[in-house]
Amino acid sequence: MLTLYYMPGTCALASHIALEDSGASYQAARIDFRKEEQKSIKYLAINPKSRVPALATPRGILTETPAILAFLAQSFPEAHLAPLDDPFAFAEVQAFNAYLCASVHVAHAHRMRGYRWADEETSFADMQRKVPKSVGEGFELIETKMFKGPWVMGADYTIADPYLFTLANWLEADGVDIKRFPRVAEHFARMGERPNVRRVLEEESAP
Amino acid sequence: MLTLYYMPGTCALASHIALEDSGASYQAARIDFRKEEQKSIKYLAINPKSRVPALATPRGILTETPAILAFLAQSFPEAHLAPLDDPFAFAEVQAFNAYLCASVHVAHAHRMRGYRWADEETSFADMQRKVPKSVGEGFELIETKMFKGPWVMGADYTIADPYLFTLANWLEADGVDIKRFPRVAEHFARMGERPNVRRVLEEESAP
Repeated sequence: MLTLYYMPGTCALASHIALEDSGASYQAARIDFRKEEQKSIKYLAINPKSRVPALATPRGILTETPAILAFLAQSFPEAHLAPLDDPFAFAEVQAFNAYLCASVHVAHAHRMRGYRWADEETSFADMQRKVPKSVGEGFELIETKMFKGPWVMGADYTIADPYLFTLANWLEADGVDIKRFPRVAEHFARMGERPNVRRVLEEESAP
Repeated sequence: MLTLYYMPGTCALASHIALEDSGASYQAARIDFRKEEQKSIKYLAINPKSRVPALATPRGILTETPAILAFLAQSFPEAHLAPLDDPFAFAEVQAFNAYLCASVHVAHAHRMRGYRWADEETSFADMQRKVPKSVGEGFELIETKMFKGPWVMGADYTIADPYLFTLANWLEADGVDIKRFPRVAEHFARMGERPNVRRVLEEESAP
């Protein structure tokens, strides 16, 4: 049994959807950031980074979305969530996910989490003003150079798809109009209709 | 034949060392950031992100350090650079690398590249002041919670080792005393003595 620690509205959504996609037996445990549960001694013993997602497995805890996604793809090969037998194609999936993780998510994080990298209110306001531009540029690159279609990596659905969906889900709040990116927008709408995605969103939106 | 596009002093060093470790036939092509070659039309055709590293392969271009490192490990299994047949152990390597990529490298980048996330000189100065703290906290977590020893992942050298070495190499300039982290410091010194590392550092430091 796997346990996913998540908070609604965070990048843990990608791992949550991938768990559904994988067919794994799992449970989802909400860590309520409003109650600062991510800073509790109990949760810090699970993930000393004080973040989500974390995936508890029989072997131990895994963190970091790209690592969890690749782990699910490799652990449940019958779900065909990545080109496991082709190191180049697998690396393309991983490169896409690393870009989401280290560039697009990081740009987004400057809207709400500027305190990670600065101390002054004026800096936070400056960072917040730049988010539409920096996040927008990330999605522009995805739209024009990286997205293959109909899925992120082309003909086959992979672990890159729920991850892109997760970050696209933040665009409105980030002040970026998804309509600027027609291929991403179509993908976002199509992802939102998948039963696994609807099931996860329903669970995450429950009180 | 593989071609690594790199600039000295960047995170491309990790891929450069891993290429040596892999036994691959490769060449290294310097992209001179001082001449803004990363913004040239020629280089943007290779990597539209305008960054290094990029790895040209017979199948196409790969970017993003964690993806390149995993690609090298999977493509040259005889070099034993990652636990390829164990999804959990492989995910632990990937989680470590993702943390370096998306947290530690990102913290470091606020010293020189604040313009990615803000516009005001006062914000840049604020960000620069915080780098010793944010980078220091990243290494504190590595030292106390993540580093297994003698190598990052324990008994076996993996693709996590050249990546940690690369970021540890920035600590002095980031205003962080590596002596605060005895295990990281010992690893850094030991890595620096490896012939592959010395060979790469020599090539990257040539005029």
